[in-house]
Amino acid sequence: MIFNDYDRIVFAGDSVTDMESAQPVGEGLFDNVGRSYVRIIENMLSAVYPEVHVRVTNAGIGGNTSRDLLARFDRDVVQLNPDWVSICIGINDVWRQFDTPAMPDYAVFPEEYEQNLEKMIAMIPQSVKGVFILSPYYMEPNREDVMRARMDEYVAICKKLADKYGFRFVDFQALYEDYCKIRHSSYIAWDRVHPNQVGATLMARAFLAQCDFDYAHEVQK
Amino acid sequence: MIFNDYDRIVFAGDSVTDMESAQPVGEGLFDNVGRSYVRIIENMLSAVYPEVHVRVTNAGIGGNTSRDLLARFDRDVVQLNPDWVSICIGINDVWRQFDTPAMPDYAVFPEEYEQNLEKMIAMIPQSVKGVFILSPYYMEPNREDVMRARMDEYVAICKKLADKYGFRFVDFQALYEDYCKIRHSSYIAWDRVHPNQVGATLMARAFLAQCDFDYAHEVQK
Amino acid sequence: MIFNDYDRIVFAGDSVTDMESAQPVGEGLFDNVGRSYVRIIENMLSAVYPEVHVRVTNAGIGGNTSRDLLARFDRDVVQLNPDWVSICIGINDVWRQFDTPAMPDYAVFPEEYEQNLEKMIAMIPQSVKGVFILSPYYMEPNREDVMRARMDEYVAICKKLADKYGFRFVDFQALYEDYCKIRHSSYIAWDRVHPNQVGATLMARAFLAQCDFDYAHEVQK
Amino acid sequence: MIFNDYDRIVFAGDSVTDMESAQPVGEGLFDNVGRSYVRIIENMLSAVYPEVHVRVTNAGIGGNTSRDLLARFDRDVVQLNPDWVSICIGINDVWRQFDTPAMPDYAVFPEEYEQNLEKMIAMIPQSVKGVFILSPYYMEPNREDVMRARMDEYVAICKKLADKYGFRFVDFQALYEDYCKIRHSSYIAWDRVHPNQVGATLMARAFLAQCDFDYAHEVQK
Amino acid sequence: MIFNDYDRIVFAGDSVTDMESAQPVGEGLFDNVGRSYVRIIENMLSAVYPEVHVRVTNAGIGGNTSRDLLARFDRDVVQLNPDWVSICIGINDVWRQFDTPAMPDYAVFPEEYEQNLEKMIAMIPQSVKGVFILSPYYMEPNREDVMRARMDEYVAICKKLADKYGFRFVDFQALYEDYCKIRHSSYIAWDRVHPNQVGATLMARAFLAQCDFDYAHEVQK
Amino acid sequence: MIFNDYDRIVFAGDSVTDMESAQPVGEGLFDNVGRSYVRIIENMLSAVYPEVHVRVTNAGIGGNTSRDLLARFDRDVVQLNPDWVSICIGINDVWRQFDTPAMPDYAVFPEEYEQNLEKMIAMIPQSVKGVFILSPYYMEPNREDVMRARMDEYVAICKKLADKYGFRFVDFQALYEDYCKIRHSSYIAWDRVHPNQVGATLMARAFLAQCDFDYAHEVQK
Amino acid sequence: MIFNDYDRIVFAGDSVTDMESAQPVGEGLFDNVGRSYVRIIENMLSAVYPEVHVRVTNAGIGGNTSRDLLARFDRDVVQLNPDWVSICIGINDVWRQFDTPAMPDYAVFPEEYEQNLEKMIAMIPQSVKGVFILSPYYMEPNREDVMRARMDEYVAICKKLADKYGFRFVDFQALYEDYCKIRHSSYIAWDRVHPNQVGATLMARAFLAQCDFDYAHEVQK
Amino acid sequence: MIFNDYDRIVFAGDSVTDMESAQPVGEGLFDNVGRSYVRIIENMLSAVYPEVHVRVTNAGIGGNTSRDLLARFDRDVVQLNPDWVSICIGINDVWRQFDTPAMPDYAVFPEEYEQNLEKMIAMIPQSVKGVFILSPYYMEPNREDVMRARMDEYVAICKKLADKYGFRFVDFQALYEDYCKIRHSSYIAWDRVHPNQVGATLMARAFLAQCDFDYAHEVQK
Repeated sequence: MIFNDYDRIVFAGDSVTDMESAQPVGEGLFDNVGRSYVRIIENMLSAVYPEVHVRVTNAGIGGNTSRDLLARFDRDVVQLNPDWVSICIGINDVWRQFDTPAMPDYAVFPEEYEQNLEKMIAMIPQSVKGVFILSPYYMEPNREDVMRARMDEYVAICKKLADKYGFRFVDFQALYEDYCKIRHSSYIAWDRVHPNQVGATLMARAFLAQCDFDYAHEVQK
Repeated sequence: MIFNDYDRIVFAGDSVTDMESAQPVGEGLFDNVGRSYVRIIENMLSAVYPEVHVRVTNAGIGGNTSRDLLARFDRDVVQLNPDWVSICIGINDVWRQFDTPAMPDYAVFPEEYEQNLEKMIAMIPQSVKGVFILSPYYMEPNREDVMRARMDEYVAICKKLADKYGFRFVDFQALYEDYCKIRHSSYIAWDRVHPNQVGATLMARAFLAQCDFDYAHEVQK
Repeated sequence: MIFNDYDRIVFAGDSVTDMESAQPVGEGLFDNVGRSYVRIIENMLSAVYPEVHVRVTNAGIGGNTSRDLLARFDRDVVQLNPDWVSICIGINDVWRQFDTPAMPDYAVFPEEYEQNLEKMIAMIPQSVKGVFILSPYYMEPNREDVMRARMDEYVAICKKLADKYGFRFVDFQALYEDYCKIRHSSYIAWDRVHPNQVGATLMARAFLAQCDFDYAHEVQK
Repeated sequence: MIFNDYDRIVFAGDSVTDMESAQPVGEGLFDNVGRSYVRIIENMLSAVYPEVHVRVTNAGIGGNTSRDLLARFDRDVVQLNPDWVSICIGINDVWRQFDTPAMPDYAVFPEEYEQNLEKMIAMIPQSVKGVFILSPYYMEPNREDVMRARMDEYVAICKKLADKYGFRFVDFQALYEDYCKIRHSSYIAWDRVHPNQVGATLMARAFLAQCDFDYAHEVQK
Repeated sequence: MIFNDYDRIVFAGDSVTDMESAQPVGEGLFDNVGRSYVRIIENMLSAVYPEVHVRVTNAGIGGNTSRDLLARFDRDVVQLNPDWVSICIGINDVWRQFDTPAMPDYAVFPEEYEQNLEKMIAMIPQSVKGVFILSPYYMEPNREDVMRARMDEYVAICKKLADKYGFRFVDFQALYEDYCKIRHSSYIAWDRVHPNQVGATLMARAFLAQCDFDYAHEVQK
Repeated sequence: MIFNDYDRIVFAGDSVTDMESAQPVGEGLFDNVGRSYVRIIENMLSAVYPEVHVRVTNAGIGGNTSRDLLARFDRDVVQLNPDWVSICIGINDVWRQFDTPAMPDYAVFPEEYEQNLEKMIAMIPQSVKGVFILSPYYMEPNREDVMRARMDEYVAICKKLADKYGFRFVDFQALYEDYCKIRHSSYIAWDRVHPNQVGATLMARAFLAQCDFDYAHEVQK
Repeated sequence: MIFNDYDRIVFAGDSVTDMESAQPVGEGLFDNVGRSYVRIIENMLSAVYPEVHVRVTNAGIGGNTSRDLLARFDRDVVQLNPDWVSICIGINDVWRQFDTPAMPDYAVFPEEYEQNLEKMIAMIPQSVKGVFILSPYYMEPNREDVMRARMDEYVAICKKLADKYGFRFVDFQALYEDYCKIRHSSYIAWDRVHPNQVGATLMARAFLAQCDFDYAHEVQK
Repeated sequence: MIFNDYDRIVFAGDSVTDMESAQPVGEGLFDNVGRSYVRIIENMLSAVYPEVHVRVTNAGIGGNTSRDLLARFDRDVVQLNPDWVSICIGINDVWRQFDTPAMPDYAVFPEEYEQNLEKMIAMIPQSVKGVFILSPYYMEPNREDVMRARMDEYVAICKKLADKYGFRFVDFQALYEDYCKIRHSSYIAWDRVHPNQVGATLMARAFLAQCDFDYAHEVQK
């Protein structure tokens, strides 16, 4: 497993990351870390590797676009001295193009999206051991759907930047593509975005698959 | 316009019809009639034809399948002595097949759906001047989507019965099919089912199109 | 239809415009745009002309007089770069003269009212394509009623200024005068001011009548 | 002053009588007796005639028509063994004719209204020392207003029955007719029905004027 | 009646004056003026003398001692440009001596009380037409009770200052002394301080008795 | 100390006993036993005699007169198989005579009070080891006060019955008589009835004084 | 994996099973299934084996002892026609012996506990494919602690019955014994009973370990 | 008894001291002083020594570590001019080491704890008559428990400093050690930290045992 004792992971994102976490960032007691995939990652790390203390910090805020996240990236990510950084942003960048089409300034278009990501990446300190790029997604199997097609552009940007910088990449869009071949998207999310706990579990598993996480791990006695 | 002074229309349905209406039925003062297409139909009738008093009763209850509606059809529709009856049911019959697939008794499959509709139709008194069948729908343009494909079966049953009995038929599925060619479904409903006020307006217009409703009507002085 | 793609209309006003809109201005998702005639105008534009994106912004605040609106006109209207401006103000200017007669500073008398309107008009940028003056009103058919008589003075000022500047003028007082010949004012508003959804629909229709709005419009395919 | 020590007055009525009183009837501690003219009558009796204990019971329920009041008249008035009975009903009988014109069964028309009153009167026990008929009203000075004109019919029925049976009659319609010559109805009630505390005071004074109430009374020491 | 058209009376005080009034001062629509004797004074003035517009402003704040009132006297009284000023303060000055005896700084002792009153009086502008001193009180008939005995000292100071400056003096202590000979204090207030509506009525009557108020006044037509 | 391991004491009473206890009876976890003297008795027993398990059940209900308590005495006391019974009732029997003097049926006069107590006593099973009569009280040092004088009659009845049956008697009236010579009643209760936690402590101490309770007791190790 | 398509598992239990599930039983949409280990089991089954539909029903109710569960076992378990039954009960049976020691009838002692379990087992229909006994526990590593020692008796009874009937046995006590060697119990639960999400995850993993659950399972395409 | 008339005691601490007290400090009327041992100390002082006015101020804030308390010690303790100071801090310093082990900066380790206490002690003015150090505690009888063992280090620091400066020392750890030999910790607190009212009573008694408090004290008449 890639995390060391007392490593800190900061998960930046939007409502998919947030899910009732404390604001602006949440961790520790009670439900401060929220109910998203972040919570499930922490649960699994603590349940399977109790001998390794991993500090999990949720820096998701609902409704954020990449523009919003960039504006608070220093305060909510960099200043926290993370050992690992995870970024999952872009859904609202795309969604606003379709649900409030008369207000184009609510949306973030691909060119700016890529720039925003680049600016965030540039802010990440050298001391960080690893970065995760978690793709945005739309649980729409039909690639012809205009919002899905647009989302694919953002997923591609994520993948391009992850490759460019050697970051770990988690493709949530591909995850849901596969899953929805078996169960309909409405099983996970009526709105095809906000996952229920099954969806959050799927996302946590995909994340942990990038972390050499071993479900059969047992503490050496 | 087809309605006469003091005609009563009862709109039976599920959450798409209900939208915060009084329970089990709502009409008259305050927001008793709810915020769905029913409210907008009443608004348009009262605004354009103030000289004709049409009593609009909302008998929608959120979450209902055709099985639920059948169970209360006598109390909530027949006993109210309607002059016109509108039925819009079936979305939950289908949805439960996909969002809770392990609980098949929550869903209503096509054969039972048709029987339920037939039983309701048989209960409608002779005195009723006209019946509207409003199709269920899923704002999914991709006809290959399994839930959309399944919904189309229910729409076809609606159309078949409307034809069989000479009822007015409003095809909400076709309505959204057309609209979503121009604006993405997320503009109307994130979950592709529960419409915002624009969607409710679209549905009210489609209903009124079956009623010889004239937007340019003016009261004779 | 007079609006072009991506035009922005800002509706300034009091509670009749506001009706639960986000404060100080509301637009876009959820119920931010409120439940007044503004919402219904947006519904109709989006339902009938989906190919034209019109940005509708509600800048109404309950209880405002023209003095209050003037004080925030720069922030809530001018700074938003509207293409079209709608002003519906004056009811509270008059009402306070009658419901709190011992506190004359709560009211705005005709001379100041006209000045306030003039000052707002002077602030509207040249770039604005058109201005709507929506008259205040009191749903009181009896022109001898002292509050109705006073309101008529304000309506006349609105009309005078609309004529002077070539603005579109919507006469809500005349609208209700006509409607109340058929249905009693208590059908629309117990207090003869705050309209229910039928009243809001009447007002939206009167507004759209000034916009070359065609209810039979169909999108060219 | 006409009331004797330990007399009980029961005030039957609708929301104008009720105004937050305990349901179905209220009296005694806290705000059980509500905030209407009933409360002010009790205040004045207790303040000016503390040596006389008058039991004041509020049996008003908001929204009641004469039909509703008749249905509960035995339980809420007769069974309480009143020494004096006050009836103030009819506003909703009329209002529903105008605010929900498509639902005529919500309203009570003059013939039934008179019958309902007659039936209530017939139920009043012989032991009752006196009965007050308090007229319904609409704070509309214009007698041509259709709702005002209709209300006048109900006022006339009240007066007729009061004369027929020798009951004390309080003409609230005349009271507001006079008052609104000086202050506009919106000073008392935006909706011309539900009075503020000034209106409740006016009504209490009109009631006490029928009771040989002496504001200058002083307790003999 | 001593008040002229458009006179403004500002009532300064503690919870006995406040009783849910808007903070820091309340007047006009809704329940802004609270539910204390101030509300009843306004009701009586408006009901009996509708042709005279008297502006009634409630500047009471619950829990205030004379020290607290002095600290806000400029903002809440002087700056409002009153024509008449009423001061009713001192109950908390005394009460804190007995209910929190270990915290002497919560209380205000007689010497400071008199100074506080003198300072407030000195701040009242020359333009004020008249000042009312309303005595504090404790509804305790037993003059030997230590809190009653202490309260009598404050009442005496009020009377002394009213005499010194020629102000109108309303002796609430004497009022309740008399009333409680007939009805027990628990009829008015379980805590012998916060009056119910009967108590508020008693206090309003005592105030109006200083104003040449004529209950039989009728508007000249 | 008189209580044995697993003895159960049921405290019957009104709001003075109740103080937010679970309804109709409360004991055990959380705040079920309320915040009155009952809670403090339980605290002291458990803190000082942890080796003795005493079950403390609060059967107080706010507003009860002896008539109300008698009506539920079987359900709330007898059926619980108490080993010890405590009865503290009568304050409301008296209070209603003074705070709602026009409604004499709300009160319970001395003759009935005594009968009610006798009836409750007759219902107490033989198996009960001991009975406590806790007197009602009014924290009014002035014995001339009419409510205090009346309360003394009820206290005398309590004492008489306690003597007659050999019950333990706790004289709360005497307790407060003494205490109020040092601190004013408003330190304990503004309304002279509902004690704060200091008052509850005083009452618990007076109760325990009847129980051979030793504050210096230490568990034998 | 042992479950087949459309198998139904009913989880009976107390607050540890319940954790905000719908009452009396919860399953399906929203958070009906609660937030306990039951939710996590469902998440894992659905995430890893989406091709197998397993119906997961939460029949836990907070505060239940085995006596309470037995009383509703027919309604909440047997009547639901489960394919698999899981029983996790006993914590409150023990806890009440220690947190409310004076009320022994709140607790269930070992003999009755065993009988209650036997009675429930006898009610399970033959058609059930398998039964899980999940042991109660107290996260107290010190086996000398009296509550831990007592709990061990109940765990032993569970194990004995599981062996006797050939049921699957999950030893939560052993699970926490091991885990608390590494992290202190306060990391999972301040009260050593109600687990946070990490604890719920540990319990779900222990359950799934009895189900041939393969974390590396992939759907065959 | 060691306290003199008008002495003020300020109790600094965390949630164990706070228990719903007013923030940041609470005293006097209503429940401002909270529901902890502080309230019970005040109750006992006022009940047994009413002739001595002791001002009891609760300066506890839930969740505080010694680091948090030090940061506000000047504002919440020193500035209040106490005659006596009580400090009860450290539970959260320890707890965070175990319930959020991955976030070491939430905890305060022994060295810093001692320094924090020393800094607070240095801030206490010379005028203070006496200081109480109340030890932190964990109601865990097993001294091998890692959190209990760690807590013992903090208790030892408290004792060391109390000895060094001649302060009164109350050993809550020893108190619960003894008590839990008779009743299980879950009788006082499920989480072994936050006491119920019995626990608060135990703590108050231990405090008063340091104050020459005589339960049998009677006021000299």
